[in-house]
Amino acid sequence: MQHLPASFFLQMAAILLACRVVGWVGRKIGQPQVVGEMIAGVLLGPSLFGYFFPTQSAQLFTADTRGMLFIGSQLGVGLYMFLVGMEFKTELFRSRVRSAASVSIAGMVVPFILGALLAPWLIKIPGLFSPTTKVYEAGLFMGAAIAITAFPMLARIIYERGLSGTSLGTLALAAGAIDDAAAWCVLAIVLASFSGDSKMAIIAIAGGTLFAGLMLTVGKKLLAKLGTIAEREGKVNPTLMAIILMLFCLSAWFTDTIGIHTVFGGFILGIAMPRGVITQDLTKKLEPFTVIFLLPMFFTYSGLNTRLAVVFQPSMMLVAIAILVASMVGKGVACWAAARLTGEDNRTALAVGALMNSRGLMELIIINIGLQKGVIGSGLFAILVIMAVVTTLMASPIFEYVYGRHARKAGALGLGGIDG
Amino acid sequence: MQHLPASFFLQMAAILLACRVVGWVGRKIGQPQVVGEMIAGVLLGPSLFGYFFPTQSAQLFTADTRGMLFIGSQLGVGLYMFLVGMEFKTELFRSRVRSAASVSIAGMVVPFILGALLAPWLIKIPGLFSPTTKVYEAGLFMGAAIAITAFPMLARIIYERGLSGTSLGTLALAAGAIDDAAAWCVLAIVLASFSGDSKMAIIAIAGGTLFAGLMLTVGKKLLAKLGTIAEREGKVNPTLMAIILMLFCLSAWFTDTIGIHTVFGGFILGIAMPRGVITQDLTKKLEPFTVIFLLPMFFTYSGLNTRLAVVFQPSMMLVAIAILVASMVGKGVACWAAARLTGEDNRTALAVGALMNSRGLMELIIINIGLQKGVIGSGLFAILVIMAVVTTLMASPIFEYVYGRHARKAGALGLGGIDG
Repeated sequence: MQHLPASFFLQMAAILLACRVVGWVGRKIGQPQVVGEMIAGVLLGPSLFGYFFPTQSAQLFTADTRGMLFIGSQLGVGLYMFLVGMEFKTELFRSRVRSAASVSIAGMVVPFILGALLAPWLIKIPGLFSPTTKVYEAGLFMGAAIAITAFPMLARIIYERGLSGTSLGTLALAAGAIDDAAAWCVLAIVLASFSGDSKMAIIAIAGGTLFAGLMLTVGKKLLAKLGTIAEREGKVNPTLMAIILMLFCLSAWFTDTIGIHTVFGGFILGIAMPRGVITQDLTKKLEPFTVIFLLPMFFTYSGLNTRLAVVFQPSMMLVAIAILVASMVGKGVACWAAARLTGEDNRTALAVGALMNSRGLMELIIINIGLQKGVIGSGLFAILVIMAVVTTLMASPIFEYVYGRHARKAGALGLGGIDG
Repeated sequence: MQHLPASFFLQMAAILLACRVVGWVGRKIGQPQVVGEMIAGVLLGPSLFGYFFPTQSAQLFTADTRGMLFIGSQLGVGLYMFLVGMEFKTELFRSRVRSAASVSIAGMVVPFILGALLAPWLIKIPGLFSPTTKVYEAGLFMGAAIAITAFPMLARIIYERGLSGTSLGTLALAAGAIDDAAAWCVLAIVLASFSGDSKMAIIAIAGGTLFAGLMLTVGKKLLAKLGTIAEREGKVNPTLMAIILMLFCLSAWFTDTIGIHTVFGGFILGIAMPRGVITQDLTKKLEPFTVIFLLPMFFTYSGLNTRLAVVFQPSMMLVAIAILVASMVGKGVACWAAARLTGEDNRTALAVGALMNSRGLMELIIINIGLQKGVIGSGLFAILVIMAVVTTLMASPIFEYVYGRHARKAGALGLGGIDG
């Protein structure tokens, strides 16, 4: 155990350095920090660092410290999904539910149709899915992977550009939130079904439904009391924060134990939290460490599992192109068309399409769960990493081109960089 | 790997619960939260939970999750020492160096004399020291263990009670800071010497001196630039925070690699940091998660190593009593006497003695390092845990009795509870 701390701290220093350097390069060309960190993770893995420096890579990422990276990742994405859950504004559904409905339905239905169409073909290609994955599971998984949006990034872009009150902002936020919630539900069903054992599947589905149902009714009412304490004191005191972190750990433990994933526990707890001082102060106290220290562990853990070399074969290239096109059509084009059909002008519709098309960190979370639970193989994983990076890379330039520069000319847009 | 996250989150929920419940009981009887957490850690270990529920204990604290606990502990105390380092005010030495000198010298010289006197006796008793520990190493270790003060707790009591500008506050802070710095230096020397291999010892001493020297001169100047950025922006931006966390990891890695300990890296980096917006904002962003989530991991890790049963033998009881008396005389009585001799009134002198006598978390850190590096055995470890808890438990009631209630009557004292 003697040298474990030294290995851990050296590894973390390397990860933080890579994430910041690549993030800095990305920001120079107008990309959000998260894109840089996604790419940094891949570069630290067997696709670059591990390929050219196999000895150094094995020394830096030892079996022991990989275990730490795994748990740090789980804690990081769990806390991050908790923070994302707290950002969910249920009022959005009520206030703009009609105008957002068509965009969100388009961004949900089209991906699942495309997923269903692709699945029978993809499942026959070795290395994409696990041999035990059934066609409908493959279809649902592909649908969820295409339907997911970088909701937290989208929320941040809208907030930072001062678009929160605008038609574009409300539309994209509400549609993104509905689609992400739907994609997570579908993933939970896939995981439950994939567990094979029908008893396990029932535990997963019934347990997950019960957990969400209880948390969003009784749990929400009980949590409201914690909110009242925070409002009265004007802050989240240490005891309150410890209680909430304990509830977070229990939620993560429960959802992992019933066979879905720790992130669901964090996410649902976040949604059930009362809004106000409590969410603001918790975000202030948890977000910096989560985003700056823990999430890079996740990006690296994910990157260590990414073997881009697998994709450089003619058959795989074809699959990659098909999935990339399906993803852009299923999300970007579908959402743009739906926004146009409900009367939005072309510029707003294009901006909504670009934002909804961006997958970001959320895609990485979903596909890492798929890989970890054995639903997908390393080939499909690598292809979906590329899809996540490409669609996220596209978002900022398209948004800037079709919407940002015009709005900024009209003085309606902040100058703050996109980060997330 | 599948069930590792579930075990980790369940373990964390149990730890957070135990720390809060025992902390709450402690606060009810006027004790700071840290005392409750120190005791909670011991109760979770083989002294209570593990003794009465061995099966459940083995299920909750598996070998895998213990590894996580170890690394989480290292990260927690490392970050905590970094925060403590940032609280160090070098001005204190200058402004009150003369009046504080006698108290700090008394609180340093007497413990080391007592350590030297106890060592030849203690080293003969099996289970207290490692067979390879030399008498002078044992003496120095005992001296450091007696000389250490709960500096962060002391600083918080003084700050929360509004005593920062008073004679008592400045005196205790300056003396505590000097003594703690001295105790850490001595510990570094013990570890360097204990490494046996003279080449290792030279690397440790030369490396540690070089590191501290460079960090507090060149490093300090370079870090000042980061401080300027934070002042200009009025906050620590994500890039700045990532750079500082990276430097923290590098410092922790370096000091661990040369054979001293990760905490030195964090602590010295903290001292070298520029003061102002940067330290305030970093503390705001790092302290809650460190203190509320990571430190309980340390208390539990430490508690899992504590076998109080070892102490319940006549020969060990005698050792325990001797060490307890030596600790109180060497620190509490010595500092009280020194304060009296330099003209402080008896009430202030008693309050200084009680505060300086409290060991808190710092003692646990020092003895865990001693145990981990093999300098001391589990018997002495358990005795020193008792010493740390008892001296910390004593501090608040004595302080309240001799100083607090009088000062509060005179309106000079806040009502805020002691925490930390």
